[in-house]
Amino acid sequence: MFAVIMAGGSGTRFWPASREHLPKQFLKITSDRSMLEETLARVAHFAPLTQSSVVVGRLHAEHTQALLAGQPTQILVEPRGRNTAACIGLAALHVAREALDEPIVILPADHFIADVAAFAQTVLAAGDAARSGAIVQIGIKPTRPETGYGYIHTGAVAGEALGQPYFSVKRFVEKPNVETALQYLASGDYLWNSGIFVFTARTILAEIETCLPALHEGLQEIAAAIGTPDYEAAVARVYDRIDSISIDYGVMEKTTKPIYVFQADFGWSDVGSWDALYDLRASEYDAEENLLLGETLIVDAKRNLVFSTTERKVALLGVEGLVIVDTPDAVMIAQRDRSQDVKRFSDLLKQK
Amino acid sequence: MFAVIMAGGSGTRFWPASREHLPKQFLKITSDRSMLEETLARVAHFAPLTQSSVVVGRLHAEHTQALLAGQPTQILVEPRGRNTAACIGLAALHVAREALDEPIVILPADHFIADVAAFAQTVLAAGDAARSGAIVQIGIKPTRPETGYGYIHTGAVAGEALGQPYFSVKRFVEKPNVETALQYLASGDYLWNSGIFVFTARTILAEIETCLPALHEGLQEIAAAIGTPDYEAAVARVYDRIDSISIDYGVMEKTTKPIYVFQADFGWSDVGSWDALYDLRASEYDAEENLLLGETLIVDAKRNLVFSTTERKVALLGVEGLVIVDTPDAVMIAQRDRSQDVKRFSDLLKQK
Repeated sequence: MFAVIMAGGSGTRFWPASREHLPKQFLKITSDRSMLEETLARVAHFAPLTQSSVVVGRLHAEHTQALLAGQPTQILVEPRGRNTAACIGLAALHVAREALDEPIVILPADHFIADVAAFAQTVLAAGDAARSGAIVQIGIKPTRPETGYGYIHTGAVAGEALGQPYFSVKRFVEKPNVETALQYLASGDYLWNSGIFVFTARTILAEIETCLPALHEGLQEIAAAIGTPDYEAAVARVYDRIDSISIDYGVMEKTTKPIYVFQADFGWSDVGSWDALYDLRASEYDAEENLLLGETLIVDAKRNLVFSTTERKVALLGVEGLVIVDTPDAVMIAQRDRSQDVKRFSDLLKQK
Repeated sequence: MFAVIMAGGSGTRFWPASREHLPKQFLKITSDRSMLEETLARVAHFAPLTQSSVVVGRLHAEHTQALLAGQPTQILVEPRGRNTAACIGLAALHVAREALDEPIVILPADHFIADVAAFAQTVLAAGDAARSGAIVQIGIKPTRPETGYGYIHTGAVAGEALGQPYFSVKRFVEKPNVETALQYLASGDYLWNSGIFVFTARTILAEIETCLPALHEGLQEIAAAIGTPDYEAAVARVYDRIDSISIDYGVMEKTTKPIYVFQADFGWSDVGSWDALYDLRASEYDAEENLLLGETLIVDAKRNLVFSTTERKVALLGVEGLVIVDTPDAVMIAQRDRSQDVKRFSDLLKQK
C-alpha cells in the first residue's frame, strides 16, 4: 500500500501551544512525539515508509524536513492551502508514477488512534476492497452524540475484505444538531466521517476528472512538470487559480462510483480541543484526575489539564476543571469545558 | 518627627511574585511603585526624609540601597530577623543620638493606606501625644470580622491631641475566632492592631530596659559601637544571641506605662493576600470586575486578578474568581478565595 499523510492543517484550537508556524500536527500533545511522527509510526504497520508521503504547507516544509530527516518518506509541499481535494490530487499524481492500481490510504496527520493493530487491519482490508476501483472510507462507530463531525449513513453489507465486512453508503450528512446526533447514535446506521480514505491513484484521478474538471486540468499541468525545473512554479501557478474544496464536497458527494465504508472501532479521536486531549489521556491522571504535562506544584486541585512547553513551574491552588497551557510567550487559563472557544484568542490577536 | 520603616518581612504570601530575595515590600503590587517606596512617600507628609530610616535584612540591603539611591533616608541593616522588638530598639538607638525626646513613628513597609492626608493628621496627633512620654498606638476601626489580626480593646477617652481624641487601652487580644470577631465588630470598642506605634526614643529604650533586659544589654553593646569600625560586628554578635520577640509581646503587653490609642479610619490594609490586593484596587476593575495588571487577552472571564511581572500574554477564557500570577520562572493559578494558602507553595518548594 501507499500512504499519504495530510499535514496541511493550520489549527488554532490548541493555542497558545499551536501557532501559525506550529500547528497541532507538530505538537507533542498525545505523547512525547509530535502527532505527525505518531501518524508515521502508525503508517509503518501497513505501508513501507518508501511508499509514504506527507503533504505540508510551505510554511511548515522546513520544520517537516528537519523532523523527518533521514527517513525515506516523501515530502510534498503545497504553496498554499487549497483544502483536501487538491492535496489528495497532488499526492495521487506522485503515487500514479509508481503504481496506478495500488491502494493509497489518505489520512490526516493530527488524529489519535488507540488500537494501532486494529487500525492497521482495517486499513489493509480497506486497501483490499479498493483494488477493485472502489472508493473506500473508514467510518468510526459513534460513542457520543457528537455535533462537531459529519456522519456517513450506511446501507447494507456490500462485501467483505480480509474477513471484515464493508457497507454501502446511503448518504453523507452534515454536522447534525444534538437531537439528530442522538437519533444517529441510537440508530446504529450512522458512522463518524473520519477523513480517512482508501482508493487507487487511477480511481481518484478519474473521479477528479469527472467531478472537478478545473482541478483535473491543473493536475495535468503539474503532472507534465514533475521531474522538471518547472515543477515548483507549476504547482504555484495551479494552486493560485484552483478553488479551495474538500474531497467530501468535491468528489464523495458527487461521484456515481460505488463508495464503501468500513465500520471501525479502534479508539479514534480527532483531538479537536484541549478537553478532548484531557479525555484521551485518562490513563495518565494523578489521584485527583489532573493530567499534568509539565513541571507542576499542586495544592488541592482537581481535574485540570496542565500542558507546558517551558521549564517554568505551573502552580495550582484550589482550582478545578481548568486547562492551563504555558508557552514561552503566552499562558492560557481556560475552563476546560470552554476549550472549543480557544480559537477566539487567535481571532483577538489578529484584530490587534 | 522621626520615622522608622520596618522592611524586614520575608513574606511568602505573594508567591510566586514574592520570593526570599524579593519580599512583598519590594513588590509593585499596590501601584507602579514598590510598597516600600509608597510608604516612604507617605512618610514625607509628616517627617523630613533626613529623619527617616528603613530597617532591612542583610539579604535586601543592596536592593534597598539601589531603590533609595540619592535619598537621605538612612538604611539600617539587620544581620538576621529578630522580630520587631530588636528592630525598633536598634532604630531607636540611632534616633536617640539625634533626639531623645522627639516622637518616632514606627510603621511597616508593606501596608496600604488610602487616605494619606487623614493618615498624616493621625500620625501628627499621635506624635503630639507621645511627647509626654506615653506609648501611642494607631488602631484601625474594623470593617469586617477579621480573624487574622490582633485587636486592641479600648477604654475611655484619655485625652486629645491636635483635635483628635485618644483612648486608654484595656488590653490587647490575640487573633479571635469568627464568633468573637463578630462580637468585637458589633461592640465598637475593639480596634485592629495596625503595628503602627509612636513614642520617643527615651520612652521605648526605657521600656526595653524594664521589659526586655537582655535586649537592653545588647543594645548597650551596639550603642557603644555606633560610629566605630566595630559597629557591624557588634550588631551581628548581639543579633546572634538575642531572642526573637515582637514589640507587642515584649513591651506592650508588659509595660506599666500608659498606652494610648488613636482610632483611625483612613482606609488601611495590611494587604495580606492576593485576594486583599484584589479588593483594594476595586477602582481599577474592568467591566467584568477583572483586575488586570499585565498583558492580557480576555474572553468571558469575570472577577479575576492577573498580576504579571513578564511581557507574556495571559489569556483567560470562561474563568471566574481566580488569581493568576505570572513570573519568569513560575506561574500560579489559584482560586482567589484560597489565596491565604499561597504560602503552601513555598513550603512545598522547601520540601523539594
